[in-house]
Amino acid sequence: MIGILGGMGPQAGVDLASKIISQTRAEKDQDHIPLLLVGDPLVPDRTAFLFGRTDINPALAMAKSVKMLIASGAKCIGIACNTAHSPPIFDVFERSVKEAYPDANVLHLIQETVRGIQAQFPLAGKIGILATQGSYEFRLYDNPLSEAGFSPLRPTNTELLTDAIFNPKVGIKACSAPPTSEARSWIISCIDNLIDQGAEAIILGCTELPLAVPESSHRGVSLIDPGLMLARALIEACAPDRLLP
Amino acid sequence: MIGILGGMGPQAGVDLASKIISQTRAEKDQDHIPLLLVGDPLVPDRTAFLFGRTDINPALAMAKSVKMLIASGAKCIGIACNTAHSPPIFDVFERSVKEAYPDANVLHLIQETVRGIQAQFPLAGKIGILATQGSYEFRLYDNPLSEAGFSPLRPTNTELLTDAIFNPKVGIKACSAPPTSEARSWIISCIDNLIDQGAEAIILGCTELPLAVPESSHRGVSLIDPGLMLARALIEACAPDRLLP
Repeated sequence: MIGILGGMGPQAGVDLASKIISQTRAEKDQDHIPLLLVGDPLVPDRTAFLFGRTDINPALAMAKSVKMLIASGAKCIGIACNTAHSPPIFDVFERSVKEAYPDANVLHLIQETVRGIQAQFPLAGKIGILATQGSYEFRLYDNPLSEAGFSPLRPTNTELLTDAIFNPKVGIKACSAPPTSEARSWIISCIDNLIDQGAEAIILGCTELPLAVPESSHRGVSLIDPGLMLARALIEACAPDRLLP
Repeated sequence: MIGILGGMGPQAGVDLASKIISQTRAEKDQDHIPLLLVGDPLVPDRTAFLFGRTDINPALAMAKSVKMLIASGAKCIGIACNTAHSPPIFDVFERSVKEAYPDANVLHLIQETVRGIQAQFPLAGKIGILATQGSYEFRLYDNPLSEAGFSPLRPTNTELLTDAIFNPKVGIKACSAPPTSEARSWIISCIDNLIDQGAEAIILGCTELPLAVPESSHRGVSLIDPGLMLARALIEACAPDRLLP
């Protein structure tokens, strides 16, 4: 059974579950992989913690839900939130889970994404990153991309991105089914900004972003959905013969 | 916490979770309702059991998963499958769950849908039903609609509907993200058939159908999505102040 920690935001966890289903080779219900999704929206905001606006590390609520997934039979786990993989959160989370379940198999969204980029774009130089301020601050994608030999790029208009995700009226966390045209147009502006800087591929590095920009390329430049990479990695870990090409 | 029994088919459970999120009044993640979704695709096919093609009542696998949801903290439960509410399955399922948890609160997809139709279309006469052969055979919607004073209608070309759902190459259970144009066109033919017979509203009475026909009306006739009715009933049962109008 695949376990998903969702709720961060809620629609992103559901989106990861949907991608696991659509990437599975199946002719009938019974060909699919059992799945358990916990959406715990009460996990404190990850970005707020990273910037010291709250002392409560979301790692503890995350670990509690993941232990429940493991206790209920989940063999490999994915977390549908980029920012939650920042070391100040993920390291504390992982320590807590491994104390209870030393063999826990929690895949790492960021590492799986960079691994996927290496496989798909081995010759690329500049890789654009769209992410939350917390992810930028803690170089969530910058460091692993640099280590893999790529040059990470950021848009110069990141304030638009923050608004597209968090605006309480039209942001994706408030309106996700469907996202608003404002949120989408702000993200597209940031994508254009990265392409103008020479990005050869662009990571939609917050799980909300692919909800508003589901297409796989823009102006001929590939848009990389880490959720899709994680979905495929989870199937590969649990039932490799059912992974669609 | 809301519990969802999914996996029947897999995308339908995810779709119910998504509708609960989109029908919740929320400005940020923390305003959403905690959610636990178990997708157990190994539940035997409901239609096959109803027609005696297998002796294994899917009720037992369903009850096992729902007990797990309750043990994990789910306070009200929805089942994302119409056919599973047929009495030969649902009655056995409910008995097993109530033995272990006498206070279990499992909402009934069909009853919630008919209740919603009474509220929305109190003066309607003929209500069209699109469903699996198992649901038709056991008069899943026919009986409660008749009891509520409506005249239930079926399309005369139901074989197209069976193919749209179950065809192993282009049916929705095989291809759901996105569904194929063949599956959609077969369903639309059945909808046209019902409208030609005088249907004043039409129930998309298999959880796969709204995946291929997401619109809320066709030729001016309302298309009723039982999943949306159930999503709203679950929010009303758990956190009524968060239900969007």
